[in-house]
Amino acid sequence: MSKYDIIVLGSGPGGYVTAIRASQLGFKTAIVEKESLGGVCLNWGCIPTKALLKSAQVFEYLKHANDYGLSVKDFDKDFDAVVKRSRGVADGMSKGIEFLMKKNKIDVIKGYGKLKPGKKIDVDGTVYSADHIIIATGARSRELPSLPQDGKKVIGYREAMTLPTQPKKMIVVGSGAIGVEFAYFYNSMGTDVTIVEFLPNVVPVEDEDVSKQLERSFKKNGIKIMTSAEVTHVDTSGDGVKATVKTKKGEEVIEADIVLSAVGIKTNIENIGLEDVGIAVDRDKILVNDYYQTNIPGYYAIGDVTPGQALAHVASAEGILCVEKIAGQHVTPLDYGNIPGCTYCSPEVASVGLTEKQAKEKGFDIKVGKFPFSASGKASAGGNKDGFVKVIFDAKYGEWLGCHMIGAGVTDMIAEAVLGRKLETTGHEVLKAVHPHPTMSEAVMEAVADAYDEVIHL
Amino acid sequence: MSKYDIIVLGSGPGGYVTAIRASQLGFKTAIVEKESLGGVCLNWGCIPTKALLKSAQVFEYLKHANDYGLSVKDFDKDFDAVVKRSRGVADGMSKGIEFLMKKNKIDVIKGYGKLKPGKKIDVDGTVYSADHIIIATGARSRELPSLPQDGKKVIGYREAMTLPTQPKKMIVVGSGAIGVEFAYFYNSMGTDVTIVEFLPNVVPVEDEDVSKQLERSFKKNGIKIMTSAEVTHVDTSGDGVKATVKTKKGEEVIEADIVLSAVGIKTNIENIGLEDVGIAVDRDKILVNDYYQTNIPGYYAIGDVTPGQALAHVASAEGILCVEKIAGQHVTPLDYGNIPGCTYCSPEVASVGLTEKQAKEKGFDIKVGKFPFSASGKASAGGNKDGFVKVIFDAKYGEWLGCHMIGAGVTDMIAEAVLGRKLETTGHEVLKAVHPHPTMSEAVMEAVADAYDEVIHL
Repeated sequence: MSKYDIIVLGSGPGGYVTAIRASQLGFKTAIVEKESLGGVCLNWGCIPTKALLKSAQVFEYLKHANDYGLSVKDFDKDFDAVVKRSRGVADGMSKGIEFLMKKNKIDVIKGYGKLKPGKKIDVDGTVYSADHIIIATGARSRELPSLPQDGKKVIGYREAMTLPTQPKKMIVVGSGAIGVEFAYFYNSMGTDVTIVEFLPNVVPVEDEDVSKQLERSFKKNGIKIMTSAEVTHVDTSGDGVKATVKTKKGEEVIEADIVLSAVGIKTNIENIGLEDVGIAVDRDKILVNDYYQTNIPGYYAIGDVTPGQALAHVASAEGILCVEKIAGQHVTPLDYGNIPGCTYCSPEVASVGLTEKQAKEKGFDIKVGKFPFSASGKASAGGNKDGFVKVIFDAKYGEWLGCHMIGAGVTDMIAEAVLGRKLETTGHEVLKAVHPHPTMSEAVMEAVADAYDEVIHL
Repeated sequence: MSKYDIIVLGSGPGGYVTAIRASQLGFKTAIVEKESLGGVCLNWGCIPTKALLKSAQVFEYLKHANDYGLSVKDFDKDFDAVVKRSRGVADGMSKGIEFLMKKNKIDVIKGYGKLKPGKKIDVDGTVYSADHIIIATGARSRELPSLPQDGKKVIGYREAMTLPTQPKKMIVVGSGAIGVEFAYFYNSMGTDVTIVEFLPNVVPVEDEDVSKQLERSFKKNGIKIMTSAEVTHVDTSGDGVKATVKTKKGEEVIEADIVLSAVGIKTNIENIGLEDVGIAVDRDKILVNDYYQTNIPGYYAIGDVTPGQALAHVASAEGILCVEKIAGQHVTPLDYGNIPGCTYCSPEVASVGLTEKQAKEKGFDIKVGKFPFSASGKASAGGNKDGFVKVIFDAKYGEWLGCHMIGAGVTDMIAEAVLGRKLETTGHEVLKAVHPHPTMSEAVMEAVADAYDEVIHL
């Protein structure tokens, strides 16, 4: 029986990063994966969707070339080629992980792993043991009882990435990051898209101002949006799908070729031996302490299976912290209040910290600043005037409570707020950090200035 | 005679920002401008060039649409329309400044201002007085004796922005930000471009790794580059221009339609009355203290006319600091070691702090980290694998000495390094600030990890 210091179950952005860091720290490490290295993120999530969205972005440039002094007479998208490019990017990245596993001398055990008592894992009949077993099995698309996925007409994100033909009409149920990214992509490609969101706003975890701005942008681009609405029934008996949507006004039946269910995720905690080992689970999540130890010594869990935000970067950070703690390093628990969230439709959305509503609910006396990209020189020059940066500070101690961005490139701009908040910056320090001109990032400085009544360009 | 608290001479990004902040602080403020509000930056620099570069970027997408699963059969650029768009953006911004002046109740005095003793300014015969006069007259394209500008065949940046017809062949002398931005733009539009740089590397103020990467990218795109080379003579007698270029190998004559001289700037300090008032000048710069006071009480200078970096954001920061000091606020002198510099060709270049060479010359024992975008998932998905992030830390105390970036969108990403450095971050803190996945900004975290041998994706 092969014996390791650390075995990681699952090779998503939680698992493979954990394995690499473990190997760096000197542990003899193996990773168990039943499908492609890289997990959902790399093969069916973050990466291939960004490839699709890039094609959409370029397609938008073709449509609007005139705005930039250019002319395009004859152009089209090749849906198959767009999908193929996305698959190629994912495959390339997965091969990259294979290379990293080899380079870091991590054994890759292909197969279905099941936890056993005594710090063992059974992979399709072969048993491996380790001093530390880290569960990183991730999650999948959640199914609603009213919206069973058949993988053909009612699909999850995975099928949405590789549809054999482009649908003419699509209903996207749920408007979190996954929902709005696909809505944007398909709309841009020419599909007639309707978003159905249960809550009153799209991207409901975001600040309300951001939700409203995104709704305006999407509607301007022809996406139909139904909020406070619910798909109560789907009928797939005919050629397409008939979805019954319940709104405040009553019920309405919408026809489409495809219904994409993007209503959240379900963790992969079934049939991995949790019960056998006695690992405690609550409300679909494996319970862990600040260092990702489960209730059973020697078993750890990180990533989507644990209660933190179900995001790739959270999983990676958790895994690194978990093995650094095992290695005896001095580690500080992850600050779940300073995790950025990004949505890569156009305009992009990025945020970190409290929304205005949350800050008020928590009883903070706040200062709010907002700077629209319409007042930014760089945004004007780039044709990216949609959107804004909004910042929220605690009026008493000056803490940067939240930062909310919508616009071109903001997913790369949010890092400033994350680092600033980690370093406990004040607004004044952001203001006096000289931001280069002309950039979109000046909007951060200006939004902070607005919070303190010192904004220049408004 | 009209009397003001503050008169600002010049309405560039130094002057107009100064005037707005002065007005916010309660000063009765006027601004003197002989041309369009916004100065060079807004009318003939930062903003209109970014508009041109955006057209070039979109044109590149048209050329490479195939890479994204799209097809374009019939497309072209309309050089006039590209220029017109750029002028439209600049005009719109200038009108925006006009609006800001009104909104902030700042008197705009149109005309040529000349300083007079006794804190007075003569504007075309009308004399105004103020308690504080702030000189913000900026700079213009520098002329070399060997390269006199005729504005037709041998031109500066100003003419390069509004050429009546697109040149077939162009020589760009100087490869600072202005030179390489125009080289990229014209090459992208289809002009045959040769860069002649006196120093051994293009963008010579940047870290050598960045210079080399940009040189590779430019050459790949068909731009010819001659380094350690000098234009010793131009002959404009014929149809085009014949430029004699001296290199280590000897002399060579290159023909072109246009020679763009981009060899730096010359401050606008002539004929503005400095001698009359007795304001001290040294090597083309007005001498000022940490609060921008000249040697004559009541007269201040900010922006390109002073010794700090000749950059729009420096001018703005200086102006704000200058009037805040006048208002009696507690201000901290500007840290000229933490000023970012950006170049908006493709790939973009952005940096702050010391280059590796400078850090070594200053005697630092350093840790260097580098992360190429070729290893970034977001870069792969976006087709932006060119470039890298390089970071330099002091090995002893962990100070972040420098950050150097080349790649897509890095001009918006450098703000993180500026703020981090201002807040005296350590590498470890950057590493533990959870950067969102998948973004280009992860490369910052990974480069820092590389410096400390903790890089994951290499």
